[in-house]
Amino acid sequence: MPTSYSISGFPEWSPEQRIIEKKVLEKIEESFRLHGFINIETCSVEAYESLIKKGDGKEIYRLSKEGKGEENLGLHFDLTLPLSRYVLERRGDLLFPFRRYQIQKVWRGERPQNGRYREFYQADIDIVSQGELPRHFEYEVPLAMCDTLKSLAPLGVGSFSMHINNRKLSEGFYRALGIKDVEETLRRIDKLDKLGPERTRGILEEVTGKEESLACLDLAKIREKDGARFEERVREVCDRWNVKGRPEERELMEEGAKDAESVLSALLHAGFEGACIDCSIARGLDYYTGCVYETFLKEDPGLGSVCSGGRYENLIRTQKQSYPGVGMSIGVSRLLSHLFSKAKADRLSPASVLVAVWNEEERWRSDEVARILRSRKIACEVSPTSAKMGSQIKRADKLLIPYVWFPAAQGSEVKDIRTGEQVKADPFSWQPDPKYAADIIVRE
Amino acid sequence: MPTSYSISGFPEWSPEQRIIEKKVLEKIEESFRLHGFINIETCSVEAYESLIKKGDGKEIYRLSKEGKGEENLGLHFDLTLPLSRYVLERRGDLLFPFRRYQIQKVWRGERPQNGRYREFYQADIDIVSQGELPRHFEYEVPLAMCDTLKSLAPLGVGSFSMHINNRKLSEGFYRALGIKDVEETLRRIDKLDKLGPERTRGILEEVTGKEESLACLDLAKIREKDGARFEERVREVCDRWNVKGRPEERELMEEGAKDAESVLSALLHAGFEGACIDCSIARGLDYYTGCVYETFLKEDPGLGSVCSGGRYENLIRTQKQSYPGVGMSIGVSRLLSHLFSKAKADRLSPASVLVAVWNEEERWRSDEVARILRSRKIACEVSPTSAKMGSQIKRADKLLIPYVWFPAAQGSEVKDIRTGEQVKADPFSWQPDPKYAADIIVRE
Repeated sequence: MPTSYSISGFPEWSPEQRIIEKKVLEKIEESFRLHGFINIETCSVEAYESLIKKGDGKEIYRLSKEGKGEENLGLHFDLTLPLSRYVLERRGDLLFPFRRYQIQKVWRGERPQNGRYREFYQADIDIVSQGELPRHFEYEVPLAMCDTLKSLAPLGVGSFSMHINNRKLSEGFYRALGIKDVEETLRRIDKLDKLGPERTRGILEEVTGKEESLACLDLAKIREKDGARFEERVREVCDRWNVKGRPEERELMEEGAKDAESVLSALLHAGFEGACIDCSIARGLDYYTGCVYETFLKEDPGLGSVCSGGRYENLIRTQKQSYPGVGMSIGVSRLLSHLFSKAKADRLSPASVLVAVWNEEERWRSDEVARILRSRKIACEVSPTSAKMGSQIKRADKLLIPYVWFPAAQGSEVKDIRTGEQVKADPFSWQPDPKYAADIIVRE
Repeated sequence: MPTSYSISGFPEWSPEQRIIEKKVLEKIEESFRLHGFINIETCSVEAYESLIKKGDGKEIYRLSKEGKGEENLGLHFDLTLPLSRYVLERRGDLLFPFRRYQIQKVWRGERPQNGRYREFYQADIDIVSQGELPRHFEYEVPLAMCDTLKSLAPLGVGSFSMHINNRKLSEGFYRALGIKDVEETLRRIDKLDKLGPERTRGILEEVTGKEESLACLDLAKIREKDGARFEERVREVCDRWNVKGRPEERELMEEGAKDAESVLSALLHAGFEGACIDCSIARGLDYYTGCVYETFLKEDPGLGSVCSGGRYENLIRTQKQSYPGVGMSIGVSRLLSHLFSKAKADRLSPASVLVAVWNEEERWRSDEVARILRSRKIACEVSPTSAKMGSQIKRADKLLIPYVWFPAAQGSEVKDIRTGEQVKADPFSWQPDPKYAADIIVRE
């Protein structure tokens, strides 16, 4: 991928790559809107204290100013924490359940390697309720994300698999095993993908004990597309490790299993064959309390999850009231690194017409044609030079602008430089080929 | 203006205000694209040294990280400096003249008062050449901006005036007066608007001497819509202060006057009656070398300039090659503060249909209707609750969603809740009223 890193870790795209990025962002947004999500934008900064409370302090960019030193502000590292503040501040004005989407840059001061960026786009949807959050949202959000990723297929996002787990299942199982620090266990299970079973067992054992670490890994092995078979395998694992648990732990497990199954079945029903329950999905963040999701591209699983999230019960709350939610986030920049080598733009300028200029004295004539075309929403550029026609056409050619317009006092002509066809044309009525009329087309 | 400043100086909008902001950004972008500008996005940071070289050090946010202290990075305070770096880095790949637009947030740590924001959107166009920059771009860029501001008329941007000056005119005049520090004189003349003539004369005198400060102010008084009259007034001022100058100074003045006039005449010719030459326009930035522009709303001149820029000869250069350009920038957030009280959105959700749910067991039926409508690009939301129909309709009502869909095994019906009309409807063929079919409409 031809990435420029003139500033280490802060990617910057060529104009052509930007066309692809923009198209991806537009498609994502269009899908979010079709699903009735409402847009908000939060400011780029948060109080530094709240950032370090939820995030990794070493990765957070704090702001400072000459003569004033450090400010109590840092750049946000995700869009969930800002959403949480936004909802609490405006809880008197928002209509709940609040369906919001948010597409913004976030910043993380990670070591810039393995395709990790320090500045990247996230595209989030969340549904936040006041009081109770109905369960159906736990499939509605991943379903919307499946639709969204599917809408990117023409740009080169091929098949993907969405992996579902439920924190209640893991938590019930861990508790029944007698594990005390459930959160830390989840955090370590989350490394399975990166470290492999052997090393994960090692770090698990420090928290859970030896036998329990093996049981945890055994549960994490379950990956099923069939609800009944999934339940069976959970029972097998419980039997194998003699996990009985108290009634409330069993209930927690059963609830978790049932919730994961109903998401699976909704996704399969909607035709997303890539859905599965995957008990290794833990998510590193400790605020998730129900279903959790990760999504992998079939063609490039090594890229990691491109769309993740989950349900959170207690992230957003006042002393009196909780605002449970469920949300997912597309890592747009990560997805892009997959798409740049596949998608192509059909032209490099929004202009579909280059209006030629015969000589500088008659430039007004070309300006006039451009003015009329633009008033009819046909994008165009007036040739920067009145040098010989060949060099004017060359510019159109290089920018892949399909038409060159030759103005004249009477009887303008327009040439399709791809076919060579040249016809008489009136700027008040001429129409470009529909495929060149609208916006730049991007395709795999 | 109902602005939230939960973090001082960093504005954040309500969902409804965001609809307006988004529409403004979209309209601006559409206009930039109609004029054949190519989009780029640069990263949010620049090397700290280059930021403090060009900007006000006290206003620049520097980044730091826990355990690592200050980084050599700061947040950009405009989009011109990033453009300059971008062009130099990619000069081998870009096609010149490079017409680019860029719409991004910028950050300035000013005292948050007088409607000044610390984080705000700028929308820039620039045309950058390699070697020579033809003069016609000096009218093409402000003309594109006039078209752009005009396209915002339906949102409440009323008449505006674009004020043109030329640095060469001022510089020639100052030099002919014997003033040594031309840049500092320009910087101080730039305060005229804020300080008034008396106090400006005071600070000018420190740089220019007494008599000269009066002459500078006399020149700055010229504001003309008529090219011939403008020339006459410049001559009158020169005569009054006995400004003769050497041939190269006179030539500079004449060139500047001529360039300003040709921009004026292009804008007037295109129907922008608000165009004028205004010799008080100086622009605080020292890199401008030719025409400079500022734009004021007739209804709210106190807002200050909402769209400014100019021509720069030497901002972008290598040792061997210069890349002169001309650019202008819309201060979108400033414009918004004018529009929020005027523009209104016709609905508060992108959804034009709320699909009702009879009971949770039949939610799948509503999901199915939604799936079909979305596949036909009709945005919808499935009711979050299956509670009594009145409360479901109330949600549509509050979000100004025009239609409520009542699914049924046979014969769905859809109700226009504004008119009360209810008709049988098939999700595969039903069409909403065209005005509700597409995106949210925002109007004054």
